[in-house]
Amino acid sequence: MKLKAFQSYLKKEKINSAIFTEKDINLTYFTQVKPSFSYLFISPKKVTLYITQLDKKPRLKDISVEFLDKNWKKKLNKNTKKIGLNYASITVAGQKKLKKLFPKAKFVDISKKLVELRETKTVNECKCIMKACQITDYAFSELIKKIRNLKTEQEVADFLEKKIKEKNGELAFPTIAAMGKNAVIPHHQTSQQKLKRGFLLLDFGAKYKNYCADMSRTIFLGTPNKNEIEMYNLLLGVQKGAIKEVKAGKKLFELDKFARKQLGKYSSYFIHSLGHGLGLDVHEMPSYIKDNTQKIRPGQVFTIEPGIYFPGKFGIRIEDTILFDGKVKILTKSRKELIKVNI
Amino acid sequence: MKLKAFQSYLKKEKINSAIFTEKDINLTYFTQVKPSFSYLFISPKKVTLYITQLDKKPRLKDISVEFLDKNWKKKLNKNTKKIGLNYASITVAGQKKLKKLFPKAKFVDISKKLVELRETKTVNECKCIMKACQITDYAFSELIKKIRNLKTEQEVADFLEKKIKEKNGELAFPTIAAMGKNAVIPHHQTSQQKLKRGFLLLDFGAKYKNYCADMSRTIFLGTPNKNEIEMYNLLLGVQKGAIKEVKAGKKLFELDKFARKQLGKYSSYFIHSLGHGLGLDVHEMPSYIKDNTQKIRPGQVFTIEPGIYFPGKFGIRIEDTILFDGKVKILTKSRKELIKVNI
Repeated sequence: MKLKAFQSYLKKEKINSAIFTEKDINLTYFTQVKPSFSYLFISPKKVTLYITQLDKKPRLKDISVEFLDKNWKKKLNKNTKKIGLNYASITVAGQKKLKKLFPKAKFVDISKKLVELRETKTVNECKCIMKACQITDYAFSELIKKIRNLKTEQEVADFLEKKIKEKNGELAFPTIAAMGKNAVIPHHQTSQQKLKRGFLLLDFGAKYKNYCADMSRTIFLGTPNKNEIEMYNLLLGVQKGAIKEVKAGKKLFELDKFARKQLGKYSSYFIHSLGHGLGLDVHEMPSYIKDNTQKIRPGQVFTIEPGIYFPGKFGIRIEDTILFDGKVKILTKSRKELIKVNI
Repeated sequence: MKLKAFQSYLKKEKINSAIFTEKDINLTYFTQVKPSFSYLFISPKKVTLYITQLDKKPRLKDISVEFLDKNWKKKLNKNTKKIGLNYASITVAGQKKLKKLFPKAKFVDISKKLVELRETKTVNECKCIMKACQITDYAFSELIKKIRNLKTEQEVADFLEKKIKEKNGELAFPTIAAMGKNAVIPHHQTSQQKLKRGFLLLDFGAKYKNYCADMSRTIFLGTPNKNEIEMYNLLLGVQKGAIKEVKAGKKLFELDKFARKQLGKYSSYFIHSLGHGLGLDVHEMPSYIKDNTQKIRPGQVFTIEPGIYFPGKFGIRIEDTILFDGKVKILTKSRKELIKVNI
C-alpha cells in the first residue's frame, strides 16, 4: 500500500534504500505477504524482497523476489550512502549487523513517515477491514444462535474463533470471553469459568488479508435486574453519543473526554482509553492520548469502546470499529441493544 | 528460570539493572508470565515486573509486581549507572527511550548471557517440553484414528490444533499439512488442497506453559509404490542414524554432515539444516551451523529432522524433539515406521 508515496519520500529525503526485516509489519504493508524470514529493500526506483528457500516465491506486482541464497549479500550495493530504518521495529543488534554490511552508510529513522502513511487507510485497506468486520459480525450472530449449547468462557471463545476461521478469517488477537466479575479485568484471560446468570463480555475480532477488526459486545445470560439494565443502557448511550461526536476537525482526545463526562458519577469505573486506531496492527495510530493534537481526518479507522467495571460484580464494554471517510461509518454492525439469553 | 544465576552474572559485571520489555520472550523466561504490556527490571537483589492496569496482577515468587500507573517512572532510580539490555530484542527506539529515562547510565548488551542461560534447560523447563511433546503425540495418534473422515490439508491441520487445545496446549507454530508435491516447499502454507493418494507431510507442535514441542511425520494415503517405500525408509534410516550419533563431545554440525553423507546421491534433495534448538522459542540455540563450534552438552534440547524433497513429486520429513541429558532422549514418541492409510 502507498508504495509510490513512500518511494517519493525516499527520493525527497535522498535515502538510497529503506530496509525492513521480517518482524516489521511494514514489510507486509508494502508487499501484502508474510514470509517466514525475509528482508525488504525499497529504493526510490526498485523494490526487492528476499525470502528463504524454505518459502514459496510469491508473484508480486512491481516487486522482485529473490532467495536468500549464499550469494545474496554480494549483490548488495556496499557503497549505499543513506539508509532508512524503522527504529520502532529494528533491534539494536539488527542495526549493528546492517552497519557492518553497509560500512559507508548513514542511517536515519523513517518510523514517523511509516506511521503517517499507515494512519490513513487506502480504499483497499478499508475493504479488507470491512471484510474483517463482516466476518466478526457473522461469528457473533452465529454465537447468539448457539450459545445455549455452550458451557464455559473457553467454549464461547472457541466457538467465535471457529466461526471466524470458517469464513477464511484469522484472529486479530486472542478472544476475550469474560463472565460476570471476570470482566472487571479488561484483558481477562478466557478461562474454564462456567457460564451462569450475569453479563458476559466478549471482545474479539477477525483478521482478513492481514487487516484487523475489533468488536466488543456484552450480553446478559438470564434476566437482568433494574440496575443492570440501567448500567447497560447508560453505557450504550455513551457509546452511541461518542460515535455521533466523530467529525472532521475534532480530536480523538476530545471524544474520550466527552464520553467520560457523559458517564457522570460512573466515570471513575471507566479505567481505560476510549479506543485506539487499528489496521495491520490491532493497536496503531491514531491515538486517543492527550499528546495527539491532530484532528480526525478521512481514512482513519479506530475503535470507540467505553466500558464500566465494578470490582467483584461485573464489567460492560461496547465497542465498534469506526471508519471516518468524511462521514462516520460504523463497520461492525452487530446489534447493540441488550441481548438477553435464557439459561 | 535460572534467575539466581542471572543475578550473579549482573553482580559480577557490576550491572545495576537489566531491563526487559514485553516483546522479549526473556521476560517470560524469568517470570513465567506473558503480560500484554510490561517492563521487567532485574537487579542483583531485586526483581520488579511492571504491568498495565488492564491485566490481572499475578502472584510471583521472589518478584514484586507493580502497575504501570501515572507515577511508576518517578519510582525508578535516575542515577542507575550501568544497565543491561538484550540488544537482540530491544528496538533502537526502545533503547533511545531508556537513555532519556536513565541519562547517567551506560548501556551494555546482555544478549549473549541470555542465550547461554537458555541454551541448556533446567529440570522444570524439560518437564514443560516433555509435556508439550506428549500433547503433540496425543494429537497425532488421534489424527491417525480419524483421518479417514477428513478431506483437506486445512481440515487435518484444524484437527491437530483442536486436539492440542483439548489438552490445554497452545500452538508452538502454525501447523503445516502438505499433500504430495506441496510438501516440496518446507514452509508450505496449509491450504484447501484435497487429500489424495500420496505422502502427507505433517509438521506441528504443542506449546505447554510457554515451552515448545516440534515434530514432523509423513504418512501415506493409499498404497505406496516400491520407490516411495524405499525413499521413506532411506530417510527414516538417516533420521534414526543421526539420533544414534548424538553424544557428548560431538558438534551438531557433525550430525548434519553425517546425515547428508548417509543420504548419498539424494543429499542434494535435503535443502535445509538437520534441525534447530528449541525451548521458549521454537527456533533457538543450539544451532547446527558450522560457526557453532560448541559441543553437545547436557540440558540441550533440539530437533533432528532430515527431509528429502523431489520437486513436482513429493516431500518427506521425519522430525523428533530430542533432549540430551548425558544420554539421548527422544521426547516425541509417535510411531515412525511408515503409516499407510486406506483411502
